[in-house]
Amino acid sequence: MSRAPELRPLDEGGFVKEIPSKAGQFSEWYTAVVLKAELADYSPVRGCIVVRPYGYTIWELMQQGLDRRFKATGHTNAYFPLFIPQSFLAREAEHVQGFAPEVAWVTRGGGEELSEPLAVRPTSETMIGHMYARWIRSYRDLPVLINQWGNVVRWEKATRPFLRTMEFLWQEGHTAHRTAEDAEAEARQMLEVYRDFVETDLAIPVLSGRKPESEKFPGAVRSYTIEALMPDAQALQSGTSHNLGQNFARAFDIKFLDSDNIEKHVWTTSWGLSWRVLGGIIMVHGDDRGLALPPKVAPFQVVIVPILTGAEREQVLAAARSLAARLGTTVRVRVDERTEVTPGWKFNDWELRGVPLRIEVGPRDLAQRQVILVPRVGGGRRPVPVDGVEHEVTAALEGVHGELFRQAKAYLDGHIVSAATPDDLVAAIAARRGFVRVLWCGAEACEQSLRRASGASPRLITDDPADGRCIACGSPAREVAYYARAY
Amino acid sequence: MSRAPELRPLDEGGFVKEIPSKAGQFSEWYTAVVLKAELADYSPVRGCIVVRPYGYTIWELMQQGLDRRFKATGHTNAYFPLFIPQSFLAREAEHVQGFAPEVAWVTRGGGEELSEPLAVRPTSETMIGHMYARWIRSYRDLPVLINQWGNVVRWEKATRPFLRTMEFLWQEGHTAHRTAEDAEAEARQMLEVYRDFVETDLAIPVLSGRKPESEKFPGAVRSYTIEALMPDAQALQSGTSHNLGQNFARAFDIKFLDSDNIEKHVWTTSWGLSWRVLGGIIMVHGDDRGLALPPKVAPFQVVIVPILTGAEREQVLAAARSLAARLGTTVRVRVDERTEVTPGWKFNDWELRGVPLRIEVGPRDLAQRQVILVPRVGGGRRPVPVDGVEHEVTAALEGVHGELFRQAKAYLDGHIVSAATPDDLVAAIAARRGFVRVLWCGAEACEQSLRRASGASPRLITDDPADGRCIACGSPAREVAYYARAY
Repeated sequence: MSRAPELRPLDEGGFVKEIPSKAGQFSEWYTAVVLKAELADYSPVRGCIVVRPYGYTIWELMQQGLDRRFKATGHTNAYFPLFIPQSFLAREAEHVQGFAPEVAWVTRGGGEELSEPLAVRPTSETMIGHMYARWIRSYRDLPVLINQWGNVVRWEKATRPFLRTMEFLWQEGHTAHRTAEDAEAEARQMLEVYRDFVETDLAIPVLSGRKPESEKFPGAVRSYTIEALMPDAQALQSGTSHNLGQNFARAFDIKFLDSDNIEKHVWTTSWGLSWRVLGGIIMVHGDDRGLALPPKVAPFQVVIVPILTGAEREQVLAAARSLAARLGTTVRVRVDERTEVTPGWKFNDWELRGVPLRIEVGPRDLAQRQVILVPRVGGGRRPVPVDGVEHEVTAALEGVHGELFRQAKAYLDGHIVSAATPDDLVAAIAARRGFVRVLWCGAEACEQSLRRASGASPRLITDDPADGRCIACGSPAREVAYYARAY
Repeated sequence: MSRAPELRPLDEGGFVKEIPSKAGQFSEWYTAVVLKAELADYSPVRGCIVVRPYGYTIWELMQQGLDRRFKATGHTNAYFPLFIPQSFLAREAEHVQGFAPEVAWVTRGGGEELSEPLAVRPTSETMIGHMYARWIRSYRDLPVLINQWGNVVRWEKATRPFLRTMEFLWQEGHTAHRTAEDAEAEARQMLEVYRDFVETDLAIPVLSGRKPESEKFPGAVRSYTIEALMPDAQALQSGTSHNLGQNFARAFDIKFLDSDNIEKHVWTTSWGLSWRVLGGIIMVHGDDRGLALPPKVAPFQVVIVPILTGAEREQVLAAARSLAARLGTTVRVRVDERTEVTPGWKFNDWELRGVPLRIEVGPRDLAQRQVILVPRVGGGRRPVPVDGVEHEVTAALEGVHGELFRQAKAYLDGHIVSAATPDDLVAAIAARRGFVRVLWCGAEACEQSLRRASGASPRLITDDPADGRCIACGSPAREVAYYARAY
């Protein structure tokens, strides 16, 4: 990861700097938006980022939206240790194979070499499995519905802010159930919670479905996923939910006495969503002017820019502040009172930062008892009367959310294509057509040959009826897989 | 740390188990309350605890109370990396001396030995100092007012749940200012925020003041502290705020161009409060029946226990649920609908868990359109009419808070004594009289001799006038120090 160029504070006068074109230099555009909108910065530790206040506030609002949904579905939060004994990771065979290469190891502490190295958690199934074995005794203790907010570490070679970082913040839910059916229902319920959150709060439409065997979480029986499509036609896995069956219950001996007086292993799930989705917000909604934030997670939903020219300067400022006080009871609002930059500079600055709605208040507006509303997307700059402006602001914010979702949905719908042959698949992926729908017999050999030929992977399997033949081998199809290149 | 005995789920029938007497076996009482109220459990990693949902919810409510105060004083949250390069810690001389012995080191990652070991952050001054040097250019960028919620690791030999754990959750504020005066004002302001939070939300009275040189944060110019007194007459440092002067600004070259066009180093502060204070809540307010929670941070402020006997069973349950629905708009309330345990067992269970107010609803109460309120502390079991019960509940919760604070304040006030001689000090500490007020000349030799003789340390220095002579050497006193044994 290269070091960032020096950042000049945005409020030092001068002009907001140009950012690369989103269509032409997508990767450079992404990095520029992350840095210039002050969402994050590179850190001196390879692969770790610093999330700056503006970016972190978006994450806090995302946390609130998710946490509310977790609690509404009966979950509570808890906290488990950062460190995991080496022997724990090894207890579940697929799990250790999946994670061992990515682990950071603490080998010294308090001035001494440790007799058993401690893994910095890459995920907490093993630690939590151990504790559940202590806590769960009876069917009356089930279900156990716990979520954890925290940091995890996975040693990554190539990293990009939010999308792939060595340390990242996320939540991981871990539940234990009495029956296989309960665990399956939980895994599906939490996938739906993710879909609802990402579409309703973040205005990002997704495909949801099941992961093929080759892409399952290490140790899972079934993994579910929501996948969003980025503007470069690559998929972003945005949330996953796993039915772990009894794999971890057996590995950690998590048993309960059922009402029939028989001791049984529990059935567990886990599910997680990370700050990676914040990267999705940037990519999906941004444009050549910078970030465009969905109102539900925008640190400032409204910015008021007073036009401080001429004699009415004080009156305009007072009107802007009074408007902010009125709006502040229902929306997150900020008045930009800086005097060292021009109104035009401020417009650019807040557009770069993606504030959903700008309100301009000038001397002439004051005289006409009106203000100017300028939504970040969808156009429609227009004067509205100061009286009743609350209603107009609420409507404008809903309009911005709707427009962001509409644009993203149009892009997604326009980038789902079908392939009837392996050549079709290869051509569609090369042409960046997005998700490519493929009939598949379910054989691993066919999947491998399609992967090799296209450079894409099967992102998810849907419940669509698989009427036809496998495009690789011609046998009767059993499943419909969606292929894409992926982050 | 010894492993906990096996926990039986509390809802398995049988009786709530006895806990040791608080007065007689304070340490065992503390551990029993932590485990039996399901606040936390021991983990398989030495020195690390698991915070269970009931305990974590208290921490979430504490976070909300603090975070609201931080934001009201202009701070925002951000996130900095967990790992810190070895060279960073060494940059400030006192800092590295203070923390090096306590650091956990990551030496392997991604299957390779690291060329430079990474410290798991014991605190983030150095990382944040490095980033501030990148971000701060002009006086217009100041002040920078950032807080971080997260985990830190300090390798501890002896550990106790919440009070001293190898990994702990906390917040650390880090600010940068234009002048020495601004930094000093910030450090004092945040100490006052802590005092207000601990007294107003947690009902724990504290002494506040300055740390003596010997107890300062490594790298600080001045450290401030709030200290609470536990029932065993030992002090618990509950929040600290540090004026770091220009020490970290020089070590990390954090400079700004002032309005006079001269480049200057900034002045920084840091301040932190951890889940250790949750240990203080347990110790200060608990009693022989278990935990007693201050209402502002109680996961359930009210528990409704329906008396489900006889024919009116369904009506009673319906009345309890309807009451919960009414109260639920203003307080955190739960109906205990369990059928496998008796009402008496539930009373004990919720007292053990420290719920501030119990409401009993029985068939006779139903007939008389009344319910029974039973505050956790202060007595006063009494019937109140169902109509207008909201007001009574609010008043009862305020009463519980007031009573908890009154009891704790009476204890603190009764445990501040003065020592006129070293022998006085030694005797007072041996007799567990609490904070011992000592006139002191300020010389380190005198402090050392008083420490050695008494086994106590100077917890803080107040602004009290130091009229008289140092109790150790007889020279004119310069300061008033409060000695105590401490956690």
